[in-house]
Amino acid sequence: MKALVLEEAGRLALREIDTGQRLGPGDVRVAIHTVGICGSDVHYYTHGRIGPFVVREPMVLGHEASGTVIETGPEVTGLAVGDRVCMEPGIPDMTSRAARLGLYNVDPAVRFWATPPVHGCLMPEVVHPAAWTYRLPDEVSFAEGAMVEPFAIGMQAAAKAAVSPGDIAVVTGAGPIGIMVALAARAAGCARVLVADFARPKLEIVGRYPGIETVDLNETTAADAVSAATEGWGADRVFECSGAAPALLGLPALVRPGGTAVLVGMPVDPVPVDVVGLQAKEIRLETVFRYAHVYDRALALMASGAVDLRPLVSETFPFEESIAAFDRAVEARPSDVKLQIRLGEA
Amino acid sequence: MKALVLEEAGRLALREIDTGQRLGPGDVRVAIHTVGICGSDVHYYTHGRIGPFVVREPMVLGHEASGTVIETGPEVTGLAVGDRVCMEPGIPDMTSRAARLGLYNVDPAVRFWATPPVHGCLMPEVVHPAAWTYRLPDEVSFAEGAMVEPFAIGMQAAAKAAVSPGDIAVVTGAGPIGIMVALAARAAGCARVLVADFARPKLEIVGRYPGIETVDLNETTAADAVSAATEGWGADRVFECSGAAPALLGLPALVRPGGTAVLVGMPVDPVPVDVVGLQAKEIRLETVFRYAHVYDRALALMASGAVDLRPLVSETFPFEESIAAFDRAVEARPSDVKLQIRLGEA
Amino acid sequence: MKALVLEEAGRLALREIDTGQRLGPGDVRVAIHTVGICGSDVHYYTHGRIGPFVVREPMVLGHEASGTVIETGPEVTGLAVGDRVCMEPGIPDMTSRAARLGLYNVDPAVRFWATPPVHGCLMPEVVHPAAWTYRLPDEVSFAEGAMVEPFAIGMQAAAKAAVSPGDIAVVTGAGPIGIMVALAARAAGCARVLVADFARPKLEIVGRYPGIETVDLNETTAADAVSAATEGWGADRVFECSGAAPALLGLPALVRPGGTAVLVGMPVDPVPVDVVGLQAKEIRLETVFRYAHVYDRALALMASGAVDLRPLVSETFPFEESIAAFDRAVEARPSDVKLQIRLGEA
Amino acid sequence: MKALVLEEAGRLALREIDTGQRLGPGDVRVAIHTVGICGSDVHYYTHGRIGPFVVREPMVLGHEASGTVIETGPEVTGLAVGDRVCMEPGIPDMTSRAARLGLYNVDPAVRFWATPPVHGCLMPEVVHPAAWTYRLPDEVSFAEGAMVEPFAIGMQAAAKAAVSPGDIAVVTGAGPIGIMVALAARAAGCARVLVADFARPKLEIVGRYPGIETVDLNETTAADAVSAATEGWGADRVFECSGAAPALLGLPALVRPGGTAVLVGMPVDPVPVDVVGLQAKEIRLETVFRYAHVYDRALALMASGAVDLRPLVSETFPFEESIAAFDRAVEARPSDVKLQIRLGEA
Repeated sequence: MKALVLEEAGRLALREIDTGQRLGPGDVRVAIHTVGICGSDVHYYTHGRIGPFVVREPMVLGHEASGTVIETGPEVTGLAVGDRVCMEPGIPDMTSRAARLGLYNVDPAVRFWATPPVHGCLMPEVVHPAAWTYRLPDEVSFAEGAMVEPFAIGMQAAAKAAVSPGDIAVVTGAGPIGIMVALAARAAGCARVLVADFARPKLEIVGRYPGIETVDLNETTAADAVSAATEGWGADRVFECSGAAPALLGLPALVRPGGTAVLVGMPVDPVPVDVVGLQAKEIRLETVFRYAHVYDRALALMASGAVDLRPLVSETFPFEESIAAFDRAVEARPSDVKLQIRLGEA
Repeated sequence: MKALVLEEAGRLALREIDTGQRLGPGDVRVAIHTVGICGSDVHYYTHGRIGPFVVREPMVLGHEASGTVIETGPEVTGLAVGDRVCMEPGIPDMTSRAARLGLYNVDPAVRFWATPPVHGCLMPEVVHPAAWTYRLPDEVSFAEGAMVEPFAIGMQAAAKAAVSPGDIAVVTGAGPIGIMVALAARAAGCARVLVADFARPKLEIVGRYPGIETVDLNETTAADAVSAATEGWGADRVFECSGAAPALLGLPALVRPGGTAVLVGMPVDPVPVDVVGLQAKEIRLETVFRYAHVYDRALALMASGAVDLRPLVSETFPFEESIAAFDRAVEARPSDVKLQIRLGEA
Repeated sequence: MKALVLEEAGRLALREIDTGQRLGPGDVRVAIHTVGICGSDVHYYTHGRIGPFVVREPMVLGHEASGTVIETGPEVTGLAVGDRVCMEPGIPDMTSRAARLGLYNVDPAVRFWATPPVHGCLMPEVVHPAAWTYRLPDEVSFAEGAMVEPFAIGMQAAAKAAVSPGDIAVVTGAGPIGIMVALAARAAGCARVLVADFARPKLEIVGRYPGIETVDLNETTAADAVSAATEGWGADRVFECSGAAPALLGLPALVRPGGTAVLVGMPVDPVPVDVVGLQAKEIRLETVFRYAHVYDRALALMASGAVDLRPLVSETFPFEESIAAFDRAVEARPSDVKLQIRLGEA
Repeated sequence: MKALVLEEAGRLALREIDTGQRLGPGDVRVAIHTVGICGSDVHYYTHGRIGPFVVREPMVLGHEASGTVIETGPEVTGLAVGDRVCMEPGIPDMTSRAARLGLYNVDPAVRFWATPPVHGCLMPEVVHPAAWTYRLPDEVSFAEGAMVEPFAIGMQAAAKAAVSPGDIAVVTGAGPIGIMVALAARAAGCARVLVADFARPKLEIVGRYPGIETVDLNETTAADAVSAATEGWGADRVFECSGAAPALLGLPALVRPGGTAVLVGMPVDPVPVDVVGLQAKEIRLETVFRYAHVYDRALALMASGAVDLRPLVSETFPFEESIAAFDRAVEARPSDVKLQIRLGEA
């Protein structure tokens, strides 16, 4: 089977590979239709590693996927051949202590697509546990189905924030994840979501959504914008999605007394935090790591029209042009939100 | 000043009355523009009492109001003459134990408009504490401003439910409050809200909103509808808004394991509850009493377009026809959701 | 192997039985040391059924057990031959929807000892999954280890109550479970726990614990006692452990505004609840069904001296006198809290 | 009236001062019995300022006080002359936005004893609002009553931690506040509390309490001790009370997946935090600022025997030796936990 293989840092190949997949009794085989390109895929391509995860053997990339079930294991119930689906790319050990508590995303033993040494899904077929495979509602296209994975991070952040209906939220950082978080926060009950960034093209895209206001950091500070929007009180919920040190240091000025900040962005190194500033307002900090229990929820919100991810697909490439797609992703054009690769029929 | 006065059970008069209002240092005087008719107003009209609250002296009716500030006390900040506003009709004692904990709505000493012996607001001017008076955003009309009070109950119910984004909710009872709760639940992050009732005209009205599905109890049971919608799992959140004994008894069949039911409807007498049924799923029950800390949140959601209450105004009467408006309310037409009385300019 | 077998309602036998246990790769074999007699065991003995669970075949009784590991399956880690242990008697399907959410106790597919048709543990050896077997700290005796099961219900109730440090709690019903709940509530941070019952011998036993006060319902009402203890404010947390209709109806008078009641007692039929009374104080109701994730926590509290269950063992019978022990349990002496049967060395 | 006056940094005087106190209608006059010396008092003495709060005029020190009511304003109910009491030293504006939400401690307008320019209570009599004055139970001595203030910080930290019964907790830093937090955490339901510090005399004092274990950082690291105590899983709750940069940076290694850290210690400057380390375990951070709604709870726990603060009074000085008491506090002897000054009868 031909797959998009990262041979080593900087070198991709669209070539035959045997990933040794075998259909277990609780598995489904899925014909992949669409795969989105994530920043982590690009980072493995350009650097060959993310923190402790190092690409030492050729590895298939991709973990944001939708497709169609083409075979089911003998113990599978609830899914049938022909079902349109998307897949949760991390497979935890359900007997682990974390998973038993319902926290399967922080199980250290989780196996996650396209995280060395585990292959991803940029190939025509994958075998996946039915338990982590979700049927797409009729209203959700394959392209949208392949967006559930990044949107799930937004869902996790919104869930951790414990939004109260009518909250005013701020999102610092309008990259793809910041946009997903902003949409999830709005769908989760925020009345207003202020998205702050320096990148105007991104702000323009997210600013078209109802309930979302943009803060152009070339013209004002986030603190000033929040203060003006809240009569000096601060935002109920702040989602830090930039991972930038100044944004993290400046959190106390954005959050209202008794409010919550959710740390989504991942700064590579430890960053200075104004502990006393947080204490003076008794601010709570939540952190997120991937997601748990949100795929079906994301799909339900998408199907009901509460969230529309379609405007975020910037361009779609055929599978044969996968390497070009990745090179475009490396460019990091300011107007690109999500690039996708299509393996199935348009 | 002429007011709509309930002289005694069954007898209304639009007549002069001295309500003895005096502007205190922290008060505002408001020219009333619109007042909605609430079921409790109608009940005082038809029965002269609600539980322990008995109309013993003539009392001005009405507690759902919007208007314009025409005078401010010397200590008022944050509000100015000309501001368009709505008013929270309950004034708690902020030094009470409940209020100090932030639970001002359950302060037993609260003084509430049109609850004997406290006058309501169906008159051209009222004096009200600025602290419980909220400026209307430009996007919110006077008619909508007068709907904040009933919508606030929906907001309180949604807040108590602690909705997780993407929840599936059920509302039993499609009266005005059930509709408000359904809209608040959707705005609070529910992906799907099933509203169940026997009254088809009400179902038709609420069913026009996105994300809301209707269950016609003339054709199916709520339990069957929920089971079908959730593959037998149950709804994450159930809002009981009918106050009907069978609905309360049947709650365990609607809620998923570990889910929550919010009791909004008020049955006059104690009703049988299936405790063992609730225990078998570890269902949590929340109760609501009016609302606290939600007026500004309701206004923010309305202004941002997340909630549109305008389709719920069934008819608007001029102040001079107030008695006719109440008689229409007594009719309880199945297609009437909210009747309003307008004192200001159209 | 000889076991205590319930042949049918009213007929026990201490006789050989083949329970067909086989050691799986993740299982341990445990030599049973002590087994407590639970009200449900007694009820199966006297009635042959509990609700939908009917004894149709001879069944070994007992589910409150401690013992010593005598064999381990090849995949077992963390337990070794010779370990002193106690066992969680319910084995859920960890792939079920409830279990994946961390709510394994409300998984409908759970297999629970001595619940027809599943055999219990009143026999010399049982095979049990290592995952549901807990090592006893040195400070915890076998007799105490066999008390973890009923105490776990108290732990679950206390956890669901979300006690805030310094809460004032009320427990209605001083049966064995009410006592367990009272001890757990105290250990969970309540400053004062008022236990109310008519049964004076039980009150005397529980009243010896520090932090626990008793309310003799022959002399006063729970409402009066709570009002006197809280200056009319009400208790922060109320644990209803009697299952008695008047106690359930009277809940609103006991709980403070914004407080929580936990329903632990199981009334056989639906009971009248004062919904409006609960609403007027915005009282939350929590329900419990067995327990989840509390065995290790219970053991830690017992080992640290925060909870002492030893005074609750009223009498211990040798295994050979098991039937006499059950007949004594049927007597329901007012001074009996927990009867135990010992299979191991004293 | 003679008071302990801080004239300027480094200069104390026990001298007459007119603090201009007048008894308002809701106030009580209290004859002070005992006042504890807090680190902040000492810091004003040695440095003349704490952050933005600068001593510009002579100021009476002291904010941890107990005493006896000697006069009541005409509107006071619930307190009478002769009542033994302690006082909450911060007086918020109850109409502020924060206070209305129940978060009066983070109201920026709070007036706090011995925080410039507000006088403290180291003098024979103070006037205080009855609403912030608490009657001491018979079981609580004046010396203990004067300890409620620092213990309240422990209560706030324990409440914010949302301890689940049987949690394993870690406290980093065994200063007076760390000790208070450890005792509160234990009383709040923790089964085990590990207290880590380099200062052996402090560890010796706190280690005498049941349920508390000590970690001598001269011999091991907190991470190693926690790992050994929890089989590598981590602590459920970590209370950072040292304010030391390495302790803050090392938090991720101490907390279990899905656990919570409460930041109590106040580092003067921003400190590096390992955001990615926190995210990988989805750790929640809570912060505390003083306390709210805990005085009555603290007193109830103390009266019931759940918390014994008496061993923490290292020495008591008569009022006349107040300056000597402060100079002893400046010494910071490693075996001193709390120094108190007594104005009333022994």
